[in-house]
Amino acid sequence: MDNVKTPFRGIIKDFKGRKACYKQDWISALCSGARILAPTTYIFFASALPVIAFGEQLSRATDGSLSTVETLASTAICGIIHSILGGQPLLIVGVAEPTVIMYTYLYNFAKERADLGQELFLAWAGWVCIWTALLLFLLAVFNACTIITRFTRIAGELFGMLIAVLFIQEAVKGVVSEFKIPKAEDPTSEKYQFQWLYTNGLLGIIFSFGLLFTSLKSRRARSWRYGTGWFRSFIADYGVPLMVLVWTALSFSVPDKVPSGVPRRLYSPLPWDSSSLHHWTVIKDLGKVPPVYIFAAFIPAVMIAGLYFFDHSVASQMAQQKEFNLKNPSAYHYDILLLGIMTLLCGLIGLPPSNGVLPQSPMHTKSLAVLKRQLIRKRMVQSAKECIKQQASNSEIYGKMQAVFIEMDTAPALLVAKELKELKDAVMKGEDKGSPIAKFDPERHIDAYLPVRVNEQRVSNLLQSLLVGASLFSMPIIKKIPTSVLWGYFAYMAIDSLPGNQFWERMLLLFIAPRRRYKVLEGVHASFVESVPFKCIVMFTLFQFVYLLVCFGVTWIPIAGILFPLPFFLLISIRQHLLPKLFHPQHLWELDAAEYEEIAGAWTHSLSGISFKDMKPTRSGDEDSEVELCDAEILDELTTSRGEFKLRSVSFNDDKVHPEEDVP
Amino acid sequence: MDNVKTPFRGIIKDFKGRKACYKQDWISALCSGARILAPTTYIFFASALPVIAFGEQLSRATDGSLSTVETLASTAICGIIHSILGGQPLLIVGVAEPTVIMYTYLYNFAKERADLGQELFLAWAGWVCIWTALLLFLLAVFNACTIITRFTRIAGELFGMLIAVLFIQEAVKGVVSEFKIPKAEDPTSEKYQFQWLYTNGLLGIIFSFGLLFTSLKSRRARSWRYGTGWFRSFIADYGVPLMVLVWTALSFSVPDKVPSGVPRRLYSPLPWDSSSLHHWTVIKDLGKVPPVYIFAAFIPAVMIAGLYFFDHSVASQMAQQKEFNLKNPSAYHYDILLLGIMTLLCGLIGLPPSNGVLPQSPMHTKSLAVLKRQLIRKRMVQSAKECIKQQASNSEIYGKMQAVFIEMDTAPALLVAKELKELKDAVMKGEDKGSPIAKFDPERHIDAYLPVRVNEQRVSNLLQSLLVGASLFSMPIIKKIPTSVLWGYFAYMAIDSLPGNQFWERMLLLFIAPRRRYKVLEGVHASFVESVPFKCIVMFTLFQFVYLLVCFGVTWIPIAGILFPLPFFLLISIRQHLLPKLFHPQHLWELDAAEYEEIAGAWTHSLSGISFKDMKPTRSGDEDSEVELCDAEILDELTTSRGEFKLRSVSFNDDKVHPEEDVP
Repeated sequence: MDNVKTPFRGIIKDFKGRKACYKQDWISALCSGARILAPTTYIFFASALPVIAFGEQLSRATDGSLSTVETLASTAICGIIHSILGGQPLLIVGVAEPTVIMYTYLYNFAKERADLGQELFLAWAGWVCIWTALLLFLLAVFNACTIITRFTRIAGELFGMLIAVLFIQEAVKGVVSEFKIPKAEDPTSEKYQFQWLYTNGLLGIIFSFGLLFTSLKSRRARSWRYGTGWFRSFIADYGVPLMVLVWTALSFSVPDKVPSGVPRRLYSPLPWDSSSLHHWTVIKDLGKVPPVYIFAAFIPAVMIAGLYFFDHSVASQMAQQKEFNLKNPSAYHYDILLLGIMTLLCGLIGLPPSNGVLPQSPMHTKSLAVLKRQLIRKRMVQSAKECIKQQASNSEIYGKMQAVFIEMDTAPALLVAKELKELKDAVMKGEDKGSPIAKFDPERHIDAYLPVRVNEQRVSNLLQSLLVGASLFSMPIIKKIPTSVLWGYFAYMAIDSLPGNQFWERMLLLFIAPRRRYKVLEGVHASFVESVPFKCIVMFTLFQFVYLLVCFGVTWIPIAGILFPLPFFLLISIRQHLLPKLFHPQHLWELDAAEYEEIAGAWTHSLSGISFKDMKPTRSGDEDSEVELCDAEILDELTTSRGEFKLRSVSFNDDKVHPEEDVP
Repeated sequence: MDNVKTPFRGIIKDFKGRKACYKQDWISALCSGARILAPTTYIFFASALPVIAFGEQLSRATDGSLSTVETLASTAICGIIHSILGGQPLLIVGVAEPTVIMYTYLYNFAKERADLGQELFLAWAGWVCIWTALLLFLLAVFNACTIITRFTRIAGELFGMLIAVLFIQEAVKGVVSEFKIPKAEDPTSEKYQFQWLYTNGLLGIIFSFGLLFTSLKSRRARSWRYGTGWFRSFIADYGVPLMVLVWTALSFSVPDKVPSGVPRRLYSPLPWDSSSLHHWTVIKDLGKVPPVYIFAAFIPAVMIAGLYFFDHSVASQMAQQKEFNLKNPSAYHYDILLLGIMTLLCGLIGLPPSNGVLPQSPMHTKSLAVLKRQLIRKRMVQSAKECIKQQASNSEIYGKMQAVFIEMDTAPALLVAKELKELKDAVMKGEDKGSPIAKFDPERHIDAYLPVRVNEQRVSNLLQSLLVGASLFSMPIIKKIPTSVLWGYFAYMAIDSLPGNQFWERMLLLFIAPRRRYKVLEGVHASFVESVPFKCIVMFTLFQFVYLLVCFGVTWIPIAGILFPLPFFLLISIRQHLLPKLFHPQHLWELDAAEYEEIAGAWTHSLSGISFKDMKPTRSGDEDSEVELCDAEILDELTTSRGEFKLRSVSFNDDKVHPEEDVP
């Protein structure tokens, strides 16, 4: 328990590490100029849409006590704070589904107590936030982040699946609710007459499935065969918000004879309405909460602190996957401290707190990798072409290119030389042979052998948070979105999160007839498919599935449901102590690799040296014809739609958070 | 003009040829026993569903003068006649879209003449049929079928595209009509109040798109990864009728408060209603038609005779593609004669005539090929295993297998030895080396090297026609199908017909960015993509597209629209005389090969020796694990969803109808 003996150790180390590159974090954004707006708008839409959806979910769950205004405000405020003061500026924060679920339980509990009620709900939630913040401070101070190596794939993916199941549940509940009269509404109004209620429901089905289908299609636009590269990239990056726009526009095509209110649209007060403004004074009500409830708030606070600690760290890890070759240090401890401060702030002003969000954070890093690649590539091709014009020798050309690369990159020269070895070989080959085929072609060769680099800076995160804040002023427009479009969006989020989740892929594997498994082996597949006996895969997957059912079941328990994160904390212990006894260590390592287990003879898939070339399509014949494979498409092929690298066999294998490193 | 000098030559030859194998046509079905029911039910559903859809289309177009009862009756009667007396029993006949379009023009013309009107419409149509029959007799007698080598891919595919466009038009018109009050209905009834009309329209959208989407998905079930082989085959073969059933069942889930008549269902009198029965006496009215209209009937008759001649021959050709290795002779001339007789009969009893239908005919042959393969394979594996048990030498095993194959096949022994050469090599290899890897495995090797054989018989066609007839008695059930499900089915038929249509694939090619064309080259692609300059492909495709627009435009002209087949007859002449002047002969040959053009140095893709092995998936590693790739799936990979072989570079290249053969 060295961690406890050296409080503040992690925080101080993180702080020092980030301080050294803080200035650079702002300068390097300036170098990319207006191009930084591309990842900014991309992440803004990816981040704002779910927050709007969660706002609507929260509004229904809390009878309007909290709504889209509050979720957007929290995301914007926390985003601005994190982008300026945060340790890892690639991490995106926002109000996420676990927060919404927790707040739903809090509201249901408060509503039924006579001495709390809807009035003191936010004040009581404020106390929960205060406790949560305190717990997060303690976790940060006592270097708890060193235990994130215990978070193996099994817990992360189970949690991801649970969220997906909850999204589907929300989508189904939402569509069904379109056929019903909302509570607290006047059932005698025209729009709630049976025929219009039924019409509303049918429109709901059309809009939900329409959005789901078109979003899933547009998501894959980058690999379409048709259309120009620019068009495909645009659809792939902005297709989902575009589809929300399209279906919202279509919802205005209903004939005039249909009464207003059909189809139903988002319900939310405007930010400048009095019902929104009164939240900001929630701090005054803190004293009105009876003491017994102040102490009772500790129980949900433990759950939320655990969840946030887990979610925030994993999101941060995902944004810093080894394969991205990040140069700046991580700051897990410091970021948890800052998360505590942000949670406290949100609690005091009556907003649901934000934490690190998962698909968006790696998506952010990915989009910055594409940007950086474009910049480096341009400069290197330029210098190589100049050299060729001056009839320089191939080694001179390579020398020049390496110099350009080092100039744009902060990595030590020795490492660069190693990473650029393949490019060097490609350049040099031309010199030896002098044959026209092996001739060095700057554009083609640089494209193939350029290592992954990320434009690490704070501006894109700050700008996207400011945009989220600005979108508060467009609430009158956001309110035009039909609720059914959001139900479709929930289903989309669930389905989009499945590919790449190995738990899901193992479940599918169980449904493949034994004789057809060769089809899996033909495609890109994880190594466990070949190396682990099928019976063992079945057992492991069934265990995980039953565990998922238990976790899902817990969420249905009226008040004790608030303990739903408990099974996840328990799972980490089960993984460490029970599973190694049930499964062969080698198989367990393949299915769910853990840093802390040393497997004799286990080979490590080193992917850190991955370069874009590895995923180039295999082409037959003509070397000369240009292949249009834009940078983003290459990264798309390497990663899942959630930004995770597909071939990671070791899921949380980040050497930057090695316990050995922190404990000397 | 040798053909004209030797009347009846083709018919007599065809008759003699088929007479020789007539008995065998019945006996070979008995050999397969109950298994023949699989292709029978498969073709019954594939054949009955469009006939029901066309019946509904015809019912709307003729104000109920003709409906599903008549289209089903015509299909059943003509099917029974053709299966017993027809020359090529693999050919499936039925009421098809061209007939429906023609009858729509006939009705619109008759309706507006005071001395014809709706009453004499069927009598006048009877006269059209009489003329058509006469023209078909003449075409058969004077051996016109020898000119079918002039029908190149360009005309056939253009016609296919026009039908697809008309299907889409019908689907869109149908869905739009769900929002409107049908003419000849009482607009004051409750179900035509605005709110229920709108509900009906929304339900229409849901059912149409639901059927379209689920049908397209289930169509591809055979290549699914999930589920057992039996389940996937079942979904692939019966998915579309199953989906019609599912969506019809779902349409009964509307709440009771919705007035009856919403959603709208098929409108058709029952076969035993008086409105259906009076058609059978249409022969009595023939004399009432004014003489001027009797002669005027000659003009549509020319069009219909041309269309039928074209459609029937092409459908027959497709059912007898070279790659199917059919053993029995063709009977084009004789079948046109029989088509004339059937048209005459239908005209006299007031039914729309049937002709050879296109996707179904090759689908029929394909399903019989799968059946035959299963039978041969079973027997060969059996005999090989017996030999192995008796420790026979490999050459003895092969000799035994060849004997079994010849016993089950009518082809000459010399030809069989040539076709089985690969199998022989595979068997013999084991003898030489004696290594365990090269050991002969009956199941695997026979699977790989068995040539394609079709179970040529008349029973499946007869039975499916009888089933179509029997389905007349289930009209009370068929009437439960919502009309919107049929609109979705029209869209499905259109979309399903596109893959494999080279005209369509060339149009898509134009939308692929130049730099992405390598993606096409990576996949299975027609040879023209590589060998013809892109500019030339563009010109040819644009010409075909403009021609399509012209043809489509003609169908919109009120009465002259009846001349819509004219452009197709013209196109055959344009292809022969004009196109060779505009395009390089080699390119034209690649894009639209014609039998009558001799291209120096043109290589012929000989696919007649194709065996199942050619499409086996390439698998890495373990030789021992069994691969479940059912027989139907192999043929599915070889052919388009319309049953055409994918890699046919020469479309109407059937040596059985060579003019040289018929003219000595």
